[in-house]
Amino acid sequence: MSEQREVPEGVREDVAEMVGDWRDYYEAKLGFRNHWYPVRFSRELAEGEMLTVKVLGEPLMLRRIDGEVFAIRDRCLHRGVPLSRKPDCYTKDTITCWYHGYTYRWQTGELVNILACPDSKLIGKRGIQSFPVQEAKGLIFVFIGDMDPLPPLEQDVPPGFLDDDLMVLGKHRDVNSNWRLGCENGFDTLHIFIHKDTTLRHYRDFNFPIGHTANPGAITLVENEGGPQGVEDDFSKHHPVWEGVIDDRIVVRGPRHNKVEGTSASSGTSIWLPGVLKVDGFPGPGLTQFEWYVPIDAGRHIYLQTIGCKVETEEDRVEFANEFEAVWKPHGLDGFNGDDIWAREVTEPFYADDYGWVDEMLCEPDSSMLEWRRLASRRNRGIQTPDDLR
Amino acid sequence: MSEQREVPEGVREDVAEMVGDWRDYYEAKLGFRNHWYPVRFSRELAEGEMLTVKVLGEPLMLRRIDGEVFAIRDRCLHRGVPLSRKPDCYTKDTITCWYHGYTYRWQTGELVNILACPDSKLIGKRGIQSFPVQEAKGLIFVFIGDMDPLPPLEQDVPPGFLDDDLMVLGKHRDVNSNWRLGCENGFDTLHIFIHKDTTLRHYRDFNFPIGHTANPGAITLVENEGGPQGVEDDFSKHHPVWEGVIDDRIVVRGPRHNKVEGTSASSGTSIWLPGVLKVDGFPGPGLTQFEWYVPIDAGRHIYLQTIGCKVETEEDRVEFANEFEAVWKPHGLDGFNGDDIWAREVTEPFYADDYGWVDEMLCEPDSSMLEWRRLASRRNRGIQTPDDLR
Amino acid sequence: MSEQREVPEGVREDVAEMVGDWRDYYEAKLGFRNHWYPVRFSRELAEGEMLTVKVLGEPLMLRRIDGEVFAIRDRCLHRGVPLSRKPDCYTKDTITCWYHGYTYRWQTGELVNILACPDSKLIGKRGIQSFPVQEAKGLIFVFIGDMDPLPPLEQDVPPGFLDDDLMVLGKHRDVNSNWRLGCENGFDTLHIFIHKDTTLRHYRDFNFPIGHTANPGAITLVENEGGPQGVEDDFSKHHPVWEGVIDDRIVVRGPRHNKVEGTSASSGTSIWLPGVLKVDGFPGPGLTQFEWYVPIDAGRHIYLQTIGCKVETEEDRVEFANEFEAVWKPHGLDGFNGDDIWAREVTEPFYADDYGWVDEMLCEPDSSMLEWRRLASRRNRGIQTPDDLR
Repeated sequence: MSEQREVPEGVREDVAEMVGDWRDYYEAKLGFRNHWYPVRFSRELAEGEMLTVKVLGEPLMLRRIDGEVFAIRDRCLHRGVPLSRKPDCYTKDTITCWYHGYTYRWQTGELVNILACPDSKLIGKRGIQSFPVQEAKGLIFVFIGDMDPLPPLEQDVPPGFLDDDLMVLGKHRDVNSNWRLGCENGFDTLHIFIHKDTTLRHYRDFNFPIGHTANPGAITLVENEGGPQGVEDDFSKHHPVWEGVIDDRIVVRGPRHNKVEGTSASSGTSIWLPGVLKVDGFPGPGLTQFEWYVPIDAGRHIYLQTIGCKVETEEDRVEFANEFEAVWKPHGLDGFNGDDIWAREVTEPFYADDYGWVDEMLCEPDSSMLEWRRLASRRNRGIQTPDDLR
Repeated sequence: MSEQREVPEGVREDVAEMVGDWRDYYEAKLGFRNHWYPVRFSRELAEGEMLTVKVLGEPLMLRRIDGEVFAIRDRCLHRGVPLSRKPDCYTKDTITCWYHGYTYRWQTGELVNILACPDSKLIGKRGIQSFPVQEAKGLIFVFIGDMDPLPPLEQDVPPGFLDDDLMVLGKHRDVNSNWRLGCENGFDTLHIFIHKDTTLRHYRDFNFPIGHTANPGAITLVENEGGPQGVEDDFSKHHPVWEGVIDDRIVVRGPRHNKVEGTSASSGTSIWLPGVLKVDGFPGPGLTQFEWYVPIDAGRHIYLQTIGCKVETEEDRVEFANEFEAVWKPHGLDGFNGDDIWAREVTEPFYADDYGWVDEMLCEPDSSMLEWRRLASRRNRGIQTPDDLR
Repeated sequence: MSEQREVPEGVREDVAEMVGDWRDYYEAKLGFRNHWYPVRFSRELAEGEMLTVKVLGEPLMLRRIDGEVFAIRDRCLHRGVPLSRKPDCYTKDTITCWYHGYTYRWQTGELVNILACPDSKLIGKRGIQSFPVQEAKGLIFVFIGDMDPLPPLEQDVPPGFLDDDLMVLGKHRDVNSNWRLGCENGFDTLHIFIHKDTTLRHYRDFNFPIGHTANPGAITLVENEGGPQGVEDDFSKHHPVWEGVIDDRIVVRGPRHNKVEGTSASSGTSIWLPGVLKVDGFPGPGLTQFEWYVPIDAGRHIYLQTIGCKVETEEDRVEFANEFEAVWKPHGLDGFNGDDIWAREVTEPFYADDYGWVDEMLCEPDSSMLEWRRLASRRNRGIQTPDDLR
């Protein structure tokens, strides 16, 4: 990494030079480019309907045509207006700009006509940017980038997420913090301190220390070619803290139901490129939580939460669906994770001017988070910059 | 235009270098200096009353004294406060600052006294900036600049606007876009696509294609010394498009009542410095629409719409006034032009950071708009900059 | 003052070079560092309670413990979150961060534990910034800076304020202007023009000219070592203006009850570092108004108004307290000073981009204000900059 490296707009040169071996991560305010990101659930886009979403700064329009979803940039080539502000879809496969009739094909982005000027030489030669789309596990994934050929989706989701027998349910909402504060809040093992009053603890019995820190061997870097890239943290190799002490006085205790098993509500977590957390055995035994922090812009992310459950029969599916609605959504995705969302939003201002990345004072257990920053810097496929949005 | 040219505050050097022969137009975010601009209707300022208006970034106060209108900058010399925030007019000809009693003469801007310090040497030697004012056709025109002698008003309005037998009525409102997007929206012939559902079409029969594009000879540059400077577009020399086709299917048709006459709702348009459109035979036969896009600041303009009608008798005047209220105002200035206002405001964000001016992708008929950008760059009398406001 | 002097973030080099011998004052947007500032009244912070306040850009938390008030920066060392957003005070002397359990001692700022990670080497070695606090005359003063030893409070308050027999009552509110516009509005003798309609004048008889200007000898610079630093203006050496004249016509008169005594509502004013005004014989005879303009950030200040009255007996105290509530608060601190607050907020925009400091046009009596700018530049103990807040 040479001194000559050009800094993208909005990145501070002085900070970039101080962060050392996680410079890419620091620069990736808008997220990493050339990765697959889930943006909505499949159930949210019915046949023939349209929706708009902003991802990595890109204003996207999605439409489902004959079952397949297509995504194009929501900005007319001509005068830059959002097509979605007044969508004119005269045919199933096209969208026409309300201003001068520039008409684009959903499947390719090609400019197929200019209604008000059908002889233009631009027709058939220019196009709006289109984005590859793929659906899996009930999610719509969009590829933001320009790689060819495309990397397989399997490389951008945590191991196990695409398993055939995994049933996935979830929800999403927008959070007012940078996406990296989402990743770090989720993967950070010390932060369980904020969950000490969670109602999830009242619903189900589990050991829940004040905090727990990794012993040697707990952290594993996963950097196999052809697979997902991530950092795994095994809680069975953690040292729990059961009592909070101030001035020699115990001031707070973590409940301990079982003297042997479990140092947390889950058995381990892992964080994967391009920004997705896997939580094993959570929010309940036998379940796995997968959650994405998808950049909207530099100050917001889509928090897309899912829970996976192994199912074999239709009965299993119905039972999980009922449990999801009755318990895991209110106590887990809303209650428990509500604390996390609040924490990210309150943390945002300190990092918003970038100096937080060098003024923060990490402690020893944060070393797992630093591993993530370094791995993400080594293994990402590109940094999204404001220039990519022009 | 040399590389050494100094770029005004708020202008991007990289964009300025790319736009070539319409660099002045690009730089004129705040409008062109040393021109006459209409700011309000005469009927809006009664004898002895005051109003404030911002034009080209200038905060102005206007007052009518013995029938004549005077305009001064709304900012005390002393500590820079707006005099209008608490106007103290102790005499007919003066306004006194509410803070320390600095007193200015409306007619000249001269500092005639400091009530709290009547011996100050500043008195009689300093003054607030005053602006020449002229009334014509029921409009109050203000000259923003410092030329001496003043150019005649005739050079800053479209031909015919000052004709003795023309009766002019109108309205105004503020629009949240740069003034140039107003000019371009109005002069652009392709944009009639957005008016395809106008209620004006239901009131009066006229041919209304999907779009129409200029044949050779339609565009005329008007650059006579001593007259207004503008670009004229003659719709009788246009090629109309009656049907919108996508993938070999007709998806939209423009109504055609008369197979011979007329390729649009009007017979032609022209755009004039410093930013005023003339629409011939519009909104109805025998009428002419004149509309100004007066810069307020970089992101807003006053949209001042007028309709002119030739009248001979008092009966003619009454008839036009009735028609204006009953038809042309609701169906034309509000309904038809409401689409234009919406379009300008939706276009604004793409140009707000200036890169829109080089990222836009114009098509062939936009060449008339480029002629306007070039003419405006050649013929303006100066560019208003933030320094002019200090 | 050499050309090489480094300019703090947010300060304009071109302006800094033009202001000459009051450059420090110009640069002190965020106030002067290493001074004592009153931030709240003692009665507003009861035993065991907490409050937050921003001063000179510093987010502070204050708590009263065993009668004494302590102040620390409201920002956790770890991830920069405000501790006050969800205060966890497990012991009387500490506050614990809600996010990961970093625990700080109120008295020193020392990091005494990390509840979720009690073995961290950071514990006992790092600390959050703490700020010296002192209470006097019912006010809580905080020292923003890093001097050692601390200057005595007596050097940062006007003469007489700490007198044993002075009873002090008051109120505070936030004003949307830079603190310097507060100082200048208060010390400026011409500004009495804005008070000409004050209801205070109806309550109590006093001479109240349109304005009054200093004769030679009225202004005294007070720069004794070991004492407060300020500028005094003696109104008995002023020349009053009783009539406002425009174009040879008297348009406004100042009421004159006593042909001999008094050229204003008070007998004199003085302004002291770090930004506090003393008004003698005001708002009533025998009283003294002391008012602070405490910087919150570059665009706001706490306006902390107090009135001092010499008292000997408990009866005196009760009488003053009653008079304060019934008269001096509504007619003085609210009514009379309400005009001042309004004026400061209306003046703010002209100075907000800094050019106001060189574009203003001062008149002769403003020379006393210039003396203040120069004295403040000579005698301050440091300039608060954005770097001090990191």
